[in-house]
Formats: sequence, structure tokens, C-alpha cells
Amino acid sequence: MVPHPLAILTEEETNVARDVIRSLHPNTVLHFREIYLSEPPKAELREFLALEHAGRLSPTTPRPPRLALVQYDVVGGDRVHVYQEAKVDVGTRKRVQHHIVGKEHFAALTVSEFEELIEACMASPLFKSALAEFDLPEGFELVIEPWPYGGRDLADDHKRFFQGLCFATNKRKNNEDANFYSFPLPIIPVMDYETREIIRVDRPATGGKGDGLQDQTFKRDIIGHCKDSDYVPELLPQGTRKDLKPLNVLQPEGPSFRVTNESLVEWQKWRFRVAFNPREGATIHDVWYDGRSVMYRLAISEMTVPYADPRPPFHRKQAFDFGDGGGGNMANNLSIGCDCLGVIKYFDAVLTGPDGTAQKLPNAICLHEQDNGIGWKHSNWRTGRAVVTRHRELVVQFIITLANYEYIFAYKFDQAGGITVESRATGILNVVNIDAGKTSEYGNVVSGGVLAQNHQHIFCVRMDPAVDGENNSVVVEESHPVPMNEATNPMGNFYQVINTTVPRATYLDAAPQLNRVIKMVNPHKINPISQKPVAYKFTPLATQTLLADPKSIQAQRAQFAQHHVWVTKYRDEEYYAGGRYTLQSQKEADGVADAVKRGEVVEDTDVVVWSTFGITHNPRVEDWPVMPVEIFQLMIRPSDFFTENPALDVPSNKNGASVVVGKSSECCRNAHI
Amino acid sequence: MVPHPLAILTEEETNVARDVIRSLHPNTVLHFREIYLSEPPKAELREFLALEHAGRLSPTTPRPPRLALVQYDVVGGDRVHVYQEAKVDVGTRKRVQHHIVGKEHFAALTVSEFEELIEACMASPLFKSALAEFDLPEGFELVIEPWPYGGRDLADDHKRFFQGLCFATNKRKNNEDANFYSFPLPIIPVMDYETREIIRVDRPATGGKGDGLQDQTFKRDIIGHCKDSDYVPELLPQGTRKDLKPLNVLQPEGPSFRVTNESLVEWQKWRFRVAFNPREGATIHDVWYDGRSVMYRLAISEMTVPYADPRPPFHRKQAFDFGDGGGGNMANNLSIGCDCLGVIKYFDAVLTGPDGTAQKLPNAICLHEQDNGIGWKHSNWRTGRAVVTRHRELVVQFIITLANYEYIFAYKFDQAGGITVESRATGILNVVNIDAGKTSEYGNVVSGGVLAQNHQHIFCVRMDPAVDGENNSVVVEESHPVPMNEATNPMGNFYQVINTTVPRATYLDAAPQLNRVIKMVNPHKINPISQKPVAYKFTPLATQTLLADPKSIQAQRAQFAQHHVWVTKYRDEEYYAGGRYTLQSQKEADGVADAVKRGEVVEDTDVVVWSTFGITHNPRVEDWPVMPVEIFQLMIRPSDFFTENPALDVPSNKNGASVVVGKSSECCRNAHI
Repeated sequence: MVPHPLAILTEEETNVARDVIRSLHPNTVLHFREIYLSEPPKAELREFLALEHAGRLSPTTPRPPRLALVQYDVVGGDRVHVYQEAKVDVGTRKRVQHHIVGKEHFAALTVSEFEELIEACMASPLFKSALAEFDLPEGFELVIEPWPYGGRDLADDHKRFFQGLCFATNKRKNNEDANFYSFPLPIIPVMDYETREIIRVDRPATGGKGDGLQDQTFKRDIIGHCKDSDYVPELLPQGTRKDLKPLNVLQPEGPSFRVTNESLVEWQKWRFRVAFNPREGATIHDVWYDGRSVMYRLAISEMTVPYADPRPPFHRKQAFDFGDGGGGNMANNLSIGCDCLGVIKYFDAVLTGPDGTAQKLPNAICLHEQDNGIGWKHSNWRTGRAVVTRHRELVVQFIITLANYEYIFAYKFDQAGGITVESRATGILNVVNIDAGKTSEYGNVVSGGVLAQNHQHIFCVRMDPAVDGENNSVVVEESHPVPMNEATNPMGNFYQVINTTVPRATYLDAAPQLNRVIKMVNPHKINPISQKPVAYKFTPLATQTLLADPKSIQAQRAQFAQHHVWVTKYRDEEYYAGGRYTLQSQKEADGVADAVKRGEVVEDTDVVVWSTFGITHNPRVEDWPVMPVEIFQLMIRPSDFFTENPALDVPSNKNGASVVVGKSSECCRNAHI
Repeated sequence: MVPHPLAILTEEETNVARDVIRSLHPNTVLHFREIYLSEPPKAELREFLALEHAGRLSPTTPRPPRLALVQYDVVGGDRVHVYQEAKVDVGTRKRVQHHIVGKEHFAALTVSEFEELIEACMASPLFKSALAEFDLPEGFELVIEPWPYGGRDLADDHKRFFQGLCFATNKRKNNEDANFYSFPLPIIPVMDYETREIIRVDRPATGGKGDGLQDQTFKRDIIGHCKDSDYVPELLPQGTRKDLKPLNVLQPEGPSFRVTNESLVEWQKWRFRVAFNPREGATIHDVWYDGRSVMYRLAISEMTVPYADPRPPFHRKQAFDFGDGGGGNMANNLSIGCDCLGVIKYFDAVLTGPDGTAQKLPNAICLHEQDNGIGWKHSNWRTGRAVVTRHRELVVQFIITLANYEYIFAYKFDQAGGITVESRATGILNVVNIDAGKTSEYGNVVSGGVLAQNHQHIFCVRMDPAVDGENNSVVVEESHPVPMNEATNPMGNFYQVINTTVPRATYLDAAPQLNRVIKMVNPHKINPISQKPVAYKFTPLATQTLLADPKSIQAQRAQFAQHHVWVTKYRDEEYYAGGRYTLQSQKEADGVADAVKRGEVVEDTDVVVWSTFGITHNPRVEDWPVMPVEIFQLMIRPSDFFTENPALDVPSNKNGASVVVGKSSECCRNAHI
């Protein structure tokens, strides 16, 4: 059984790729980073998918080769790492592509590197002497949290650095999950990855309002003004609340979805494939509704979290969670407890160990249905009859943890032809030490001695539409006021709806004052009712774009975060809004801004649309010690794609399991009266 | 047992008020419109509530009198209606206030008036001859949909008008719920309410692009190009889908909420009262969290739906669903089928018949809990331990039907101290006839011969905050970019958070580019952690404001819809954003714009905050024949109100009822590994 061309590499395939690369570097130390499916070029895959949808696949149908993308370091005798990338055809066991990545680029972090930073700190006299400047209370121990170095300063040379954010943990609690973030230490060791040496210990300021950018007024008793603030239930002083009664979701006849061939999902006229890679996490492919193509590929492309504290070295605090760490690599929590109710289907993923061996990540993605209230309703006041349907959704969910923060991502398909991409931000704020009694204009004091710095979370979703076919155009619809005038607007109530086709690759911003809507249309397929081209649309989320000065390194390396919408011509492997290499970048390279600069025609062709949105997060005390979810939703909806409400045929049966408080009768009266 | 001062009038109390008014108008024909509780003046009610919260109520505690607001017409021998309003003390059976409303104002519609329009049409030779201009196919019958007349043209005198939108229904379907909106007729009878005469039959245009505003090119076969488009399941050509399996919400231990004294709701540290009136529907009062006051009153104040078709008489199409019809009066569907899952508590309401007699409206409001995904989560990557909580919400929901449209309103309380006001728009588009084969720049053709005109839905939520006490201020928080500079922003990553207290009553607009957030703060209560005043905040929804020319009647009568936020000084009975009287208004009178014009100081005082938001709805074919819900959410959140995440003590127990597809094992691994 040959895997589907979009199926993730199996463990066996991964290990074949490892072996091929190993055999090409005999007697060499290799440090493997990632091995995963290199998706087939679109032209090739489309041919295959066309046959598949036509039901014309046979054992002899030519298939795109199964290619593994292998990312690895060749480690020299001088410990110098040379980062390389190769593609291996796992069928023929041949390397079909290979290049050495330039030293201006840095491979994403891997978890095994974390340990090395901690070891290096422990062995460093420089670090030890910095630590000795403080007295930790009895029973407290150092914790080092490895972090990407952030945007390199212009003076930094082409070295791979690591930094450690330092905290202390209260061992007297006798609990490995006591919240060490409550006790931040103002020292930041910096490691040169090649020499494994701590080359510097930065000492960030701990002052408040009125203090200068460089003022460091540490005292020996550095966490004496901090206090325990825990989140694990057994450490809560008052315990957990007792008055919450269970709410269960039961699906006595099982789920309404069907998963076959490992990755093919069918549900309520939807049909799509789920895949996974270490960079983007779960990705969605070849989305069809009722026999019609909607989307070729849908993924969360990138996100950046820049911090606004200007005191060095905090200006370097800027994570690219997908490019620096990997939305798939960091999806290490679903196997511990994927939280969804009802009947759940899990998908496993395959990651790679430092020796190149496949590591199965069980339950990396979960799939389940949920109820989201009323879907549509109408009551005829003449007859008193109401017809009501529920809004059922199918959710593809994955969760990533990046040190302190977590993000919960979901692709939600609904019965009305809509797709919603949801992101929930939660987890623990990234915090630093602040002197007792002070407040700061750089953030909010959320616990004694703990400053949560102002920051932004900016996401980018990549949509590769295939609305009723491969060639699409992008139309911007705006609603404009029209001054009162005798000829066209005598009473002043008219407004004009203006549709403009985007001719060339460009960026756009949200414009709620014009009700700007972005439509992905097929100019050749006309809706027979409205006589307009069939489309899927979304309203760009009007959230604040990147605040950093455009000349700053923060802004230069996150150009995708400076506009809400980007429209580009499709290119194979152009997946990453912030560029392929974000770690320690000084400038976004080959990201979406560069793609736009090509100035290609995007009308009636293979077009890609990117949506940027996020939150300016000036922390509240309520966000401590773990933050209640902040929810973002990008709503992608059909617009004259169908010839009527596609949810019209959803049954309006009452739900017989619901009850009235204190009564055994049913919730809803019969809709028919 | 004396009812609580906020409890809705009982049927008995309502009838007492009726009797008192009747006795004051002997030998007179009275047409009653509404009788409902006149909420006590705030100063009086606060005294009572203070005693209540202190646990110091006794049988001898003085109580605000139970006042009924009675709205009625005195009908003269000449059929002239004189609209009057009175307050009756139902305890002493005395009228304590009375005035005759000026002829420039019009009382809201009542359902009994609808029938009169239909009768008048049937009796009108003018209407009959208009109808005779068309040939309806065999088996089709006229349907008249009564509609508010809309904003009076300047030439209209002070008369109460009604208009009827006309459709035809296909009786061959043998179904009273066949969708007559599919067959619109281009005639609009206008009735003078006092004479009950059809004074005019308007003939709106049916042209398309290129046709003039007045072009009326009707043909006798007026609905020959229209077609059946039904939504009741038995009339769907393909029936309903068969592959949707049940999803049940079960609460085996019952709900987590408690309702006592008819209106007092307690749930997860929240405590508030639910009331209901014919104008606003469900209202929320005296909201406390864990012994601290949050909000004095919360309600949906108004909404307007202006249509953008400039062809007369469509410029008058503009509904004020709360002011013209009544969010409570039109809440007549919940008794038929309130759709929510789980364990539900219903609240009944009391409305008034034309003779002043109380009419019980059963199940006007429903209360239930729902699960809204993950509430907060953190995984410690060192130990592998994840702590996850669910986000449970308590929902107070009511649904209104206004002829073709429905709105589903919900106040949602959550475990993290948040309140979300949600509105879902659904129901049937208001449509008109368009000539065969034409399209229009005034809307979208959604079915053969059916033009759905472009329009907006603009809501206004009134928040009367009481954040930790009665005197509050409003602070506008913005995040501003700061140019790179050596002194304060050497690396360009800093942005400045600017807080400005609103000094006097004003309006404000959403400003996502500045991340503008509105905080309702108590300047005297300082958060001990952050040292900032305790607050509740919301981000104004950046949706398009009213598009009509500011000089137009549409705009003049909906000034509230022209800005996103209004800040006013509290006044008793100042509840209505669009003014007390919206029906046939030419200008918003005593609405929120007038309240702002008083220019009162709003700092550290009793302040009211109004949030306007909505949608520019350029219909999609998918919105036909019944529209999938469009969801709007105003999120009101604590901001340094608490000293930590208030949901921290939510239990992180796994839900044992969830299962893996095809397995009997449980959904979630034990969070503890």
C-alpha cells in the first residue's frame, strides 16, 4: 500500500531518508534536525489529485515520488556545524537535491539544543560569578529557560547564539511544577552554540518609571519581593472550586465524520486531507465541498511575538514561534491531554531525533465535532412555526507549547460551507524582575517583583485557494458612502459597493470604515442566480499591526506583520510569511514581502492569499499566573459559491437529551405547533 | 411575599395598573400598548440593594414602590388616538405620573395593529385596483407583511402610517409555511392608522443596472420569473441530510447555577438578576462577582437596519427593531422552541393585550451552561505535566423575530470574570422584485426575480458600570508607535501605552491601528499588585458605522449608529440609544447623541458607556432562503480588577464521558504523568 502523496512520511520512510544521508557522509558526525515530507510540486500533485477525484486511480497510476526533506548539521572536528538541506527520494533511496545553507541563515531550534545551554551555564565560571551576585532564599534553586537569541544586533557576527532566561524555583514546595516564573532573575547568559561557551551574561535593568534604560539597581536579595503564585491545583492555597458540575458531550451513535486512508476526512459534504509537519503543525489540503474544490492548502504560516521593553537586551525578545521553534516540533502536549469533548479521532505525527531516527508523536492532532449554538432559524409569526437548526462544527485542533506560552490552533469546518481558523493564546506570560514597589511603562506588574512586558502576538494564515478550479483572482469589495445627490442618491440612504480585482501581487490593510472584504473568486465560474463569479471571502481582522519602528530589526525581520493581507502568485515551497529562516534573522528573507516585490500578475492565475492578525497584549493582572484564553477567529465564508444556504438541509430535529431544570420534560417544544 | 424591586410586574400587578388607568378614563375607549415595571430611580434602588448585599433586609425595610409604566391610546369618537403614558403605583393603586405624548412622537407598533393593516388593504378599492394590475399564477395568493413606515419624509405630516410589503404564496404547496418571500410583489400599500384607510399604493421600481431610480417596467406576469425556495424540511426537494448523528449535552448532576426568588441567578461566583421588558427584552441587573460589584445594568439598547436602495420608497426602509417593535414584544418564539442543549431554566415574561390585560409569555428567556473549549492551559515541558481547564459559560438567551429577520441575543458570563454580549443575525432577508435577468447595484439577486437589498445591522449595547462601587471613570487606552530615538527607544522596539481619562460626555470611535481599548475604572480602588485602578474593559468592535449621508433622514434618526462608543452621565430612564420614540422619527430625539450634548462631567461619577457595532450586509446567495447566523460579540473583560486569573481555581479534571473513535478508552490521558 503506497501512502497518499500528501500523507506524512512514515517512520520507515523517515529512517530510509536518515540512512541515505548517513551513507553520503561516512565517518562524519551528523546532527539531524528535521526530516519530513517535501510536498510534491503542485503541477505534479494536481495531476494525481485530478485522477483521484475522477475515481481513475489505479495501481499503475504514476505517483509523485515520496520525497523527504532532510535538515541536518555536518559537525566538523572543530565542532563547527555546517547546516545542510537535502531531499531524498525514499522510493529510490537517492538524494535528489542538496545544498549547504549560507551562514547568514540559522536552522530552527531543536529541543536537544536546550539541554546544551543548561550544561554550558552550569560549567561556566562567568555565569557562576554572575549568579553569585545574588542570595537566593533557602530552598530556592536556579532554573534556566532556553530562549532563542532573537534578532541579532547589527554588531553580532554570524554565530548561532542561545540565551537563557533565569528564574528560581521554590523547592520547599516539594513540587516539580511549582511556578518558577514567579521568581525571575535579572541575568541572561548567552551561549555560542559552536564553542558551547557562555560568552556573556547580560544584566537587564530592573527599574521602573523614572529609571533610565540602563539602570541596574539589583540587590543581593533579588527575589525577596517575589511571591509564590502557582497554578497546579494541589498548590492553590484555596484549592479548586467545588460548585462546577459535569457537562458531558455524548455521541451515542458515534461521530458524523469518517477518516480513511489515515488522512482523508469526510464530514457533512466536506472532504479534505490532514497532514502535519514540524514547522507548521497541522495543515489542511485539497479541500472540497460537495464535489467542488475550495482550497488547495490551508495552514498557519507564521507568528511573531515582539516585546516592547526598550531596555537592552530586551529589544531582542522577539519569537517567531513557527520559524524559530516549529509549530509541529513544539506540539508536544497533545499526547498528554488533548482537551476536547465528545468522540475524538487522534492523528499521530512523526518527528525526528538528533540521530535522524523517526520519533512517533502520538495524538499530535485531534478531530472532533462540536455544537456552536443555533445555525439558522426562522419563525413564521402567522403560523407560529419555528424551524431551527444547530450549528455543528468539525474541528481539527493542535496545541503548541513554547516555553511559557501555549497556542491552541483549530481549523473549524461548518455546515454552511464556512471554514474558521481559530487561535487561542494561553499559558504563562514571559516576565522579568522589577524592583519592589515600582511600576513600569514597559509593562504591568502582575505579581510581586514580576513585570509582564508589553508585547504583540501577530499570526499569519496562508490560504492557497482553489475556488472551483485552480485559477482564481482576488477581488476587494468595499462599501462606500455616497453624498446625497439628485441623480443617484436623492434621499441619502444609498451606499455604493465597489469591487476591484487585484492586478498584481500586493499588500492590503483592513479597512473596517469601508467594510473591506477580500474575495477569492473564480472569474470563469458564474453563479447562475446572482450572475457574479463564485467566491470565498473573508474580512481581514482589523487588529493592530506591528508597532516597532519600521527601521528597527524587530520590524525588518517581521515584514509580514506590517500589513493585514498579502496577495502573491503561487510558487512551490513558498510557505513561510516571515521567510524560511527566522532564527536570529536581521531581515525577513524570502518571506511574503519579498514575494510581493516580484510584482507578478495575480489575476486569473494560481494565487495565494495571506491574512495577518493578532493582539497587542498589554498584560492584565488577570493574565497571571496562567492567562485565560484570548480567542482570534479568521472566518472564511462562501460568497455566491452556492446557489442557496448550504445548511438548508440540516435537520431541525429537537435534541431529546436536553431537559428543563428540575423537570424530566424535554428542552424544546416540538417545532411544529 | 413582596416581589424584589427589580422583578418584572406580575400578571396581577399588571392588571391592577390596567384597572387604575381604566378607572381614570371612564366611558372612554382605551387601546393599551404596554404595561411594565418602571424601574426604581437609581438612588432609591441603590439604598435597597446596599441593604440586600449587606444581608440587612427585613420585612420592615422600606422598599421602592412598585411602579407600572402604562402606555396607552385614548381613542376619541373621531377614532383619533391620543397617546399617553402614566405611572401607576400598584401598591397604593394610584396614578403618580401622567403625560400626553406630543404628536411628533409615535408609540411603538403592537401586533394587534398588524391585523388592521391587512383588513384595510382588503377593503381598499385603491389597493384592489393596484393588485389587479398583475396576474398571479393559479394557486397563488396575496400575503401582506405589515412593516413600520420608516423615517417620515419631510413632506409627511404628523400621522401614524403603516406600510405593507406584499408577496404571493404558493397555495399549491398545501403548506402554510411555504416561503412567500420568494414571490415579492412591487406594490406597497400605505395606511393612515386613524382613518384605517389605504391612502396610497407605492409602486417601487423593479429595474436593474442601467435603469433609472423611477423606472417601473412591471409586467402583468409579475412573479413568472420567481421560483419556490422553501426552508421547512418537508418542502425541501432533496429532504434533509441523513448523515448527522446526535450530539447530546448531559449534565447528570444538574446545572451549576441556582435561581432563587424568580430572578436572582448565582453561578461560579457571579450573582445577578434577570429581568425583561417589552422594549429591550432580557436585561441584566446588579451584577456582582465574588462579593464585588461590576455592573448596575446591562442591556441591548437599540438596533437599526437601514437599507441602501435609493429608489423611492425604499429610502424609508429602516427598522429600529427595539424602538419600533420591541425586543421584548417580539420575543414571541422562545415559547415555541428555545434552542439550547443541556439543562435549561426558563424565565416567563408578562406582556399586555390591547385591553390592558396581562398576557403571560412563557419561556421568554432561557438560561443554560455551555462549554466553550479550553479556558486556560499550561504544559511544563520539563516535567511533561499539562494543566488544562475548560471554559464554561452561563448563557442568558432570548430570541426575537421581526417579520422576516430573527436575532438571537445572549449575555454570556464566564469563569474568568468576563461578560460577552452576543448577537446572531439569522432569518429571512427582506427582498423585493427585480425584472428577469437583471442584476442591481443596490443588492444581490438571491433567487429568481428576488433582489436582496444591501443594508446594515447596527446594534447598541448599554453598559451601566458599577466597578467596585457606583462612581467610575472612563479611560481610553491606546498603544502608540514611538520613532526610534536614543533616549527612549534606541532599538525601535518600544511602543507607548497612553491612558487618557474622558473628562466630559463624548463619543469615540474604534481605532484598531492604535489598539484603542475602553476601560471603565474605579479611580478610588487601586489594584494592590499593579497599582492601577481596578477596571473592566472592552475593545470597541471596528465595524462600519452608518453609511447614509449625515444629512439624510436615515442618518438623522440614527445618530447612535454613527460612532462606536458613547460616554454619558447617568440619568434615570435614559435607556435608549436611538431615543424613546423611533417609530416614524425624522431625527433621533433624547437618544445618546443628545445625552452627550449636555456636556456633563463623566469623571469619577455615575457614568454610562454605550457600544455600537454591526455589519454591512451585502447579501450573499448563501443567505437565502434563511441566512446562516452572523455572529457579533462584545467582550467585556476584567482589567486589573482581580489580583490573579479568576479562573485559576477551575478544576482541571478530565471529562470522563469523552471517548476515542472506535475505542472505549477515555479521551484525555490523565493530566498527571
